Amino acid sequence: MSLLVVGSLALDTIETPFGKKDNAIGGSAVYISVSASYFIKPIRLVGIVGNDFPRNAIHFLENRDIDLEGLQIVENGKTFRWGGRYHYDLNVRDTLYTELNVFEYFKPIIPENYKKSSYICLGNIDPVLQQCVISQIENPRLVVGDTMNFWINGKKNELLKALEMMDAIVLNDSEARLLANEPNLIRAARIIMKMGPKIVIIKKGEHGAVLITQKSIFSAPAYPLENINDPTGAGDAFAGGFIGWIAKTDDLSDENLKRAVIYGSTLASFCVEEFSIERFQTLSYLEIQDRFLEFRELSRFDTDYSQKYF
Amino acid sequence: MSLLVVGSLALDTIETPFGKKDNAIGGSAVYISVSASYFIKPIRLVGIVGNDFPRNAIHFLENRDIDLEGLQIVENGKTFRWGGRYHYDLNVRDTLYTELNVFEYFKPIIPENYKKSSYICLGNIDPVLQQCVISQIENPRLVVGDTMNFWINGKKNELLKALEMMDAIVLNDSEARLLANEPNLIRAARIIMKMGPKIVIIKKGEHGAVLITQKSIFSAPAYPLENINDPTGAGDAFAGGFIGWIAKTDDLSDENLKRAVIYGSTLASFCVEEFSIERFQTLSYLEIQDRFLEFRELSRFDTDYSQKYF
Repeated sequence: MSLLVVGSLALDTIETPFGKKDNAIGGSAVYISVSASYFIKPIRLVGIVGNDFPRNAIHFLENRDIDLEGLQIVENGKTFRWGGRYHYDLNVRDTLYTELNVFEYFKPIIPENYKKSSYICLGNIDPVLQQCVISQIENPRLVVGDTMNFWINGKKNELLKALEMMDAIVLNDSEARLLANEPNLIRAARIIMKMGPKIVIIKKGEHGAVLITQKSIFSAPAYPLENINDPTGAGDAFAGGFIGWIAKTDDLSDENLKRAVIYGSTLASFCVEEFSIERFQTLSYLEIQDRFLEFRELSRFDTDYSQKYF
Repeated sequence: MSLLVVGSLALDTIETPFGKKDNAIGGSAVYISVSASYFIKPIRLVGIVGNDFPRNAIHFLENRDIDLEGLQIVENGKTFRWGGRYHYDLNVRDTLYTELNVFEYFKPIIPENYKKSSYICLGNIDPVLQQCVISQIENPRLVVGDTMNFWINGKKNELLKALEMMDAIVLNDSEARLLANEPNLIRAARIIMKMGPKIVIIKKGEHGAVLITQKSIFSAPAYPLENINDPTGAGDAFAGGFIGWIAKTDDLSDENLKRAVIYGSTLASFCVEEFSIERFQTLSYLEIQDRFLEFRELSRFDTDYSQKYF
């Protein structure tokens, strides 16, 4: 199986109560592909950077076996930059600046040998570009997309067209409420399913995630981290772990989607332990499997005992 | 085993997007004792009402086998009244009015034969009254308390004294953050444990609940209700289901505390399906057990499968 990832590559300047990093490697395509790289090969990345994008970042992605044939490097261009500051309560952040730079003119060019990719994961990019990518791929087994308030408010019609082409959507709770115009999350998910994606995953940050399909509702807890250094990229790491597991197993059953949600949660929980993609410098597959099993303990309770009292 | 419940009895006027009820029966002691009554007998209620408290409410409590010897009925007094309006997003509510009435002068008088109660559940009342109650009970097996922002901000020192006397505290996420002065919920729970209660349960509304003890962290999902009519009393129904199950089983192991959290979540989920205490008019023990088992399905995923890929 193969996975195509399309999204942003960025240089992030991040301040949290626990430190500050300037021009750290970020962007949805980076977090998605690095997270998915623990599960599946080849991963084909399509994105754009300037020639200021660090060589060591390129090497890191290559070392994770990520195929960069689809990465456009613009000579004399500057990479997309984002600056953000997280509050003491890490659920709150201010965007300090956004410089689109080369990303402003990004047109995803899908190399010929990417067009038969079996799985597609689209980061939070312009829904027009999402449509453009999906339409170029021959018969993918699963298309997963992300979006955000900016597109829901600003390009609703284009987003609705993109959603029609997606099998699964990963979005956070406020985005789900906004997109569906419905405060109840389960109802919101049902409304979004009518827009196209038959699999809806709502990320709730410190409260975990919910998977809603036509037959199942599955609630995944958040991993109880006491030390979170940088929440940046958690949602993309989630998407990467999710699609990575599915691509690895090539199994779209509801039971396997549930596992994929836990792998997504697992990758997100590692991601936030360190700034930028630093945690992935050392993260091993065995650590991922150990935490996957810890997730089960976290929500497991014994029901046999109760039967005595029926 | 016996359970002592101390808290408010109220006449609530509630508006939600789905209807309005005037002078409906409410109050923490009502929701707690009715929810616990599915599990344990006797339940001993200590509280205060005026003679405007409806006869049918008294009959309902008596029919649920709740012992009302400790209920003070003030002749020519008016029952505590609260009015609230929920927004379209039911997570947001405005308090329209609070009339303390007889509750302003409430002094919990514990009847002699209540003083050997094995379990105590204290609704969200003045921490001075909470201390007063606990100090009157001979060697209870477990004291569970609730509190709120009003006491955390206004009577912190008295609350800290009350907390020292409690074994378990049930509070919501914003209250936990405020009490511990720490945004990370797991850290906040650890800080609160140092204040006294060795069992901390953080209720997160639509996001479920987390149990933190010295040895365990357990994450309970919320039941995915699509039709919530009235969120009033959910937290107290949670506390009642929690303490009710523990009192019934008389088992304070972490594994049983986890089950108790699920029973608490179960009772809360039924509570919000109808206005006021209406759902409890028809709710059966079998329905509770069925939903308890549904909770397991909600968060269960198969891990054996994954081992193949280790």
